[in-house]
Amino acid sequence: MSAQIENRIRDSFARQSMMQTLGATLADIAKGKVEITAPILDGSRQQQGVAHAGLTFAIGDSAAGYSALTLIPEGMEVMTTEMKINLLAPGAGDHLVARGRVIKPGRRLMVVQSDIFAVTDGAERHIAMMVGTMIPVDL
Amino acid sequence: MSAQIENRIRDSFARQSMMQTLGATLADIAKGKVEITAPILDGSRQQQGVAHAGLTFAIGDSAAGYSALTLIPEGMEVMTTEMKINLLAPGAGDHLVARGRVIKPGRRLMVVQSDIFAVTDGAERHIAMMVGTMIPVDL
Amino acid sequence: MSAQIENRIRDSFARQSMMQTLGATLADIAKGKVEITAPILDGSRQQQGVAHAGLTFAIGDSAAGYSALTLIPEGMEVMTTEMKINLLAPGAGDHLVARGRVIKPGRRLMVVQSDIFAVTDGAERHIAMMVGTMIPVDL
Amino acid sequence: MSAQIENRIRDSFARQSMMQTLGATLADIAKGKVEITAPILDGSRQQQGVAHAGLTFAIGDSAAGYSALTLIPEGMEVMTTEMKINLLAPGAGDHLVARGRVIKPGRRLMVVQSDIFAVTDGAERHIAMMVGTMIPVDL
Repeated sequence: MSAQIENRIRDSFARQSMMQTLGATLADIAKGKVEITAPILDGSRQQQGVAHAGLTFAIGDSAAGYSALTLIPEGMEVMTTEMKINLLAPGAGDHLVARGRVIKPGRRLMVVQSDIFAVTDGAERHIAMMVGTMIPVDL
Repeated sequence: MSAQIENRIRDSFARQSMMQTLGATLADIAKGKVEITAPILDGSRQQQGVAHAGLTFAIGDSAAGYSALTLIPEGMEVMTTEMKINLLAPGAGDHLVARGRVIKPGRRLMVVQSDIFAVTDGAERHIAMMVGTMIPVDL
Repeated sequence: MSAQIENRIRDSFARQSMMQTLGATLADIAKGKVEITAPILDGSRQQQGVAHAGLTFAIGDSAAGYSALTLIPEGMEVMTTEMKINLLAPGAGDHLVARGRVIKPGRRLMVVQSDIFAVTDGAERHIAMMVGTMIPVDL
Repeated sequence: MSAQIENRIRDSFARQSMMQTLGATLADIAKGKVEITAPILDGSRQQQGVAHAGLTFAIGDSAAGYSALTLIPEGMEVMTTEMKINLLAPGAGDHLVARGRVIKPGRRLMVVQSDIFAVTDGAERHIAMMVGTMIPVDL
């Protein structure tokens, strides 16, 4: 990973105010792979007290998008065109971690995957799987 | 709509702290149809300043889930098992409105749809379409 | 519908040998909407004797794709980039009909929907709903 | 894998007439994993001469379903409730192979994945990825 690409992603992440609202952090950036963590804040819950699917989706989508951005030429962005989430288990734990990666890079479209885990005392439970499509666009 | 079902949904919505974080409001409840509105808060944006897909997803998912809940026996809840979102246009406008409805009710699974619109000066633009599956569970 | 566009779609359909294998027929073509019908042949079934999801998917995907093609400039094709199917009821009946339509046209991507019905003695039952993305490509 | 489970899957596969129409073969069965291969028959093509997405979907869906069936109690079946396919590359080659596996087993629902490859002179190209949900039902 060039420092240039990492800076580009950190700058973009810092402009995503939703990530700050959710308390999310860019944990790791590598070529084609990005990890985002987030606490399950008091304000991020559904009616039963576990993580709202909106939290899971938001960090999973961002992790997937930034994994695509690591492979995109300077001066371009990516946008989500579609994303499906399969929820595997309730989002209960100390915090969530979303690991995004590129399944299929492409000039016109990029297929990406995100796996989201709930972490309790260091043990990870796979709570959601997302597969979607990112489209490169000019900034 | 019985007052009982409407109360059940308003109670559940009030317990979804994520909805409060996003400033979302239960706008309308009918048999098999629920509408949720949300402003595009300063804290709900992506890097280009428009609504984060996490906001769009969160209110769309909740509207779809509550539309299913209007058709479910007392003493049961619904949970999202899977949901796909196709993003049609940027989430720019005064606020968003998500209209959820039941496509196919079922005892074991319910297929639901949500359409999300960005509203500017009263004019609606279709920004996202979601189709997913809700599963009834005991409370 | 210009005769030119209709001919383009009929020519393309005739080259889809899978449609012939499944006994499918182009039933109706309008601007942004295409209907395909298919019998449930002895060779198109799953283990319980009803229509295989592969049949439902194949005609639904083709109907959606051709609905996009009605809106595309001459000299271009469309390809499916992603498609989700929600199965609503078993594919039992005299034949199937798939109605594809464009939800969101676009220069770079087109979001499409297909609804598939099983027809028994003229009565339609909604058996599947598909939403996906078509990408225009040069021929 | 018990011989009983393997027989159950081979019996079910033999009753899927669509698999015979497509020339598909059950290549491999293991606990939670099933592989199906199929030639790209003259009758299984789209308008450009490569594999129709209906073929790719049909064998991917069946491989995923049977991977779930390896984990299901005797006397039950599985049915697809929803399935999304992301197409990664054209289906051109000597034949296709679909590898289905269970991502998340469950008593009420099973999340499954299928990856489909086009094989040319022994070299595999990843042409599609599918993620979906199977529901166990009584026979």
